[in-house]
Amino acid sequence: MRLPEPADFEAPPDTATRARWLAAERDHRPGRLERLRERMTAEGVDAYFGARREHMRWLTGFTLAEGEDKVAGHSGQFLVGAEDVVVVTDSRYTIQARREATGAVVDEVGYDLPGSWPRLLARAGARRVAVEAASVSHALWTRLAEAAPDVELVPAEGWIEPLRAVKTPDEVERIAAACAVADRALAALLPEIRPGVTEHDLALRLEWHIRTGGAEALAFDVACLAGPEAALPHGSPGDRPVLAGAVLLFDFGAQVEGYRSDMTRTLFVGEPSPRDLAVYETVAAAQAAAIDMVRAAVETGGPLPDGRAVDAAARGLIERDGRWAPYGHGLGHGIGLATHEEPSLSRRATSDPLPSPTVFSVEPGIYLEGETGVRIEDLVHLDAPARILRELTLFPREPLVLEG
Amino acid sequence: MRLPEPADFEAPPDTATRARWLAAERDHRPGRLERLRERMTAEGVDAYFGARREHMRWLTGFTLAEGEDKVAGHSGQFLVGAEDVVVVTDSRYTIQARREATGAVVDEVGYDLPGSWPRLLARAGARRVAVEAASVSHALWTRLAEAAPDVELVPAEGWIEPLRAVKTPDEVERIAAACAVADRALAALLPEIRPGVTEHDLALRLEWHIRTGGAEALAFDVACLAGPEAALPHGSPGDRPVLAGAVLLFDFGAQVEGYRSDMTRTLFVGEPSPRDLAVYETVAAAQAAAIDMVRAAVETGGPLPDGRAVDAAARGLIERDGRWAPYGHGLGHGIGLATHEEPSLSRRATSDPLPSPTVFSVEPGIYLEGETGVRIEDLVHLDAPARILRELTLFPREPLVLEG
Repeated sequence: MRLPEPADFEAPPDTATRARWLAAERDHRPGRLERLRERMTAEGVDAYFGARREHMRWLTGFTLAEGEDKVAGHSGQFLVGAEDVVVVTDSRYTIQARREATGAVVDEVGYDLPGSWPRLLARAGARRVAVEAASVSHALWTRLAEAAPDVELVPAEGWIEPLRAVKTPDEVERIAAACAVADRALAALLPEIRPGVTEHDLALRLEWHIRTGGAEALAFDVACLAGPEAALPHGSPGDRPVLAGAVLLFDFGAQVEGYRSDMTRTLFVGEPSPRDLAVYETVAAAQAAAIDMVRAAVETGGPLPDGRAVDAAARGLIERDGRWAPYGHGLGHGIGLATHEEPSLSRRATSDPLPSPTVFSVEPGIYLEGETGVRIEDLVHLDAPARILRELTLFPREPLVLEG
Repeated sequence: MRLPEPADFEAPPDTATRARWLAAERDHRPGRLERLRERMTAEGVDAYFGARREHMRWLTGFTLAEGEDKVAGHSGQFLVGAEDVVVVTDSRYTIQARREATGAVVDEVGYDLPGSWPRLLARAGARRVAVEAASVSHALWTRLAEAAPDVELVPAEGWIEPLRAVKTPDEVERIAAACAVADRALAALLPEIRPGVTEHDLALRLEWHIRTGGAEALAFDVACLAGPEAALPHGSPGDRPVLAGAVLLFDFGAQVEGYRSDMTRTLFVGEPSPRDLAVYETVAAAQAAAIDMVRAAVETGGPLPDGRAVDAAARGLIERDGRWAPYGHGLGHGIGLATHEEPSLSRRATSDPLPSPTVFSVEPGIYLEGETGVRIEDLVHLDAPARILRELTLFPREPLVLEG
C-alpha cells in the first residue's frame, strides 16, 4: 500500500472561508438563545446562569482557550434573561469580551460575582434562575444563594448540551476541516517514524504539523504510545522508543475556528505479529459493525439507533469473537467545541435515538496490559433527513506497516 | 546592551536530577498527608474528598495534564481517610494510577462515583467528610449527599492550598528549572523577532523552544501581543504583525517535572517612543518597589508583609506618578503545580503575612487601551529564615530594543 501523503487530504481553510464561518456564528447566536429561552420557559425560570467554556462561546461568542477557564475567574460566565444576555468579566477580559461577544451586554464584575449577583438578577427581573449545576462549583452555588436569598436557584443540567449536539452545516465544515488538518499532519509525520525515535519526540513533531498546518490549537494533548504502552487508553507519551515489530498508537485532534477533531490510528513499525494483526482486524471489524448499523438506519430512513445499541454492535462483535476482552471505555462521543460532548455511544448512553445532524467518534479498542493495544477512531457525520452518513476522518484505516 | 543568549541561563535538568526530584516527591507524600490529617482532626472530619488536579498530584502522585481533568471523569479524585488514601479511577486510568500513586489504594469506580460512594465511606469508617467545595460541582455534591444521606458533607475550601504554598527545596529547584527553560527559550527567540512576523508565529516558535528545551509542557498558552494589543492583559496571539517602533509583549511559562514558571517581558522593536519608554520605566519602578519591600523585611528579619501591602507598594508608585492608571489585576500570585496558587498579592489578598519558603510572581502593568501596554513579570523565591529573597527569572529586565 502506498503511504498516505499530506496532499491526499483537503488543504486548510482560506481566510474567506474562516470569515464566512465567523459570520455564520454571529448569525446563529440569536436562534440558539431562543432555543434556550424555550427551555427556560418550559422549566419556569426567568434566567439561566452558565459557566461552561463551550456554552459561552456557542451562545455569546466569548472565547477561552482550553484550561484558560481555570485562570479566567468569572470572565465569560453569562446570564441569559428574557431580553438579553450579560457576559461578566474582570478587567483582564473586558476588551476581549466587547470585541467577541458583540450581541451581549458586557458587565465588569471583577472577581466578586456574588457581590454583583443581586444587581444582575434585578436587571434581568429574575426570581427563579437556572444555574449550570455541573459546571458551577458547590462553593459558588452556596455564595450565589446567600447573595440573593429571595431568588430561587434551580439546578440545570443538560439544557444546552442537546442543542449543541445538533450541528449546522458550517459547524460540520469546521469539524471536517479539523479532521483534514489532523489527517495531513499524520501523513506528514510518517517519514519521521522509525525504531528508536521516542514517543515524546513523535508526539511533539505531530503537534507541530497540526499547529503549523491550519489549526489554532490541539483538541487535546497528543497521545503517542509504543508497543505495550498502547494498552493504556489514556497514556501519555514518554521517553520510550518506538519498537520494531510492535504497534504505535496515535490519538490526537486539531481545533479549527473553535471546532475539533479526534482520531486514533494504530500503526505497525516493521512486520506485525500474527496476534497483533488479528487484534487489529477484530477492532476494525468492530468499528465497521457500529458504523454499518447507523448507515443501515440512515439508508432505509428507519429510526436512528440509540448510543447503547451502536456501542453494543461493536462490543458484541469483540465478545462473540471471544479471544480478547473489549474496550472498557465507551465506543464514542459527540464532538464540536468540546472534544467530548453529546451524544454518548456507550453502555451508559440513554435510550434516546442519536441526534441528527450530528458528528461523533467511533473508537473501539482492545487492550492487552503489558503486551499491546489497538484502537481505531474516526469521526462520522450523520444527517438522517439528507441520508448522509460519511466519514470525516479520511486517513486510511487499513493496517499500515512502516519500515521497521 | 548585548542581547541575552540561551547559554546565559542554566541548562535543562539531567536525568539524575529528575530522578532525584521524583524520589523526593515520594518521600514528601506521607508528611503532606499527615499535615492534611491534622487539619481534618482539627475540623472534626474523618475523611477528605479532593478533586483538584494539583492536589491529586501533590498528595498521591497521580498526574493529569492541564485540561485532562475535563475528560478524565472521576479518575484521580481521592479520599483521604485516617489510615490510607484511595485514588478512584475508571478503566482508562487504572494502570497509570497504580504506576504513579504508589502509596495509595487504587479503586476502579468507573464512571459512577456516587454508586461507589457508600462503599468508599464505609471502608474509611467516615461519618463526616470534608469535600472540596470549590472543585466539586454542585451536581456532584448533591449526588454524593444523596448516595449516603447519613454521612455529613462539610464544605472544605483552602485546606490544602496553604500547605502547597510552602515549598520544599526540591519544589523550588523545579520552579527555578522551569524559569531557566523559559529564559533560554526567549533568548533563543530574539533573533527571529522582526517587523512583519505575526504574533501567532512568534508564539508558536517560542513554544517550540520551550518544549524542545527541557519542559514537558507549557505552564499556559503563550501570549504574544504586538503594539496596542499589549493593552489586553490576557489577549491571545493573532495574525497581527510585529510593528516597528512599538512594544511586543510575551507572557509565558514552562513546566518541568510538574512545576511551573511564569514570566512576562515587554520588548521594543525599533526605537521606542518617549511615552512607551516612560510607561516601561514606571512599571519597572513599581516592580522594584514591591520586591524591595519584601527584601527589606527579609534582610531585617522583621515580619513579612501581607500580599495587599506588597501590591500597594507597586500600585501606589504608579498612582503617585499619576500619568497612567495602574493595572486592574493583582500584582502577583504563588506558583508551583498550578500557575496561579497561594499566596495572592493583590487588593483582595488576606492580611496574613506572606508564607515562607514560597515562590510568587511580581507583575505590575500599565495598559492604555488602543495604544500600548507594558507588563514585567518575574518569579521570586522567598525564604525568610534563610534570609533569601532572590529572583528565579533571570532574563534581563532592562528595556530591550531589538532592530526594527
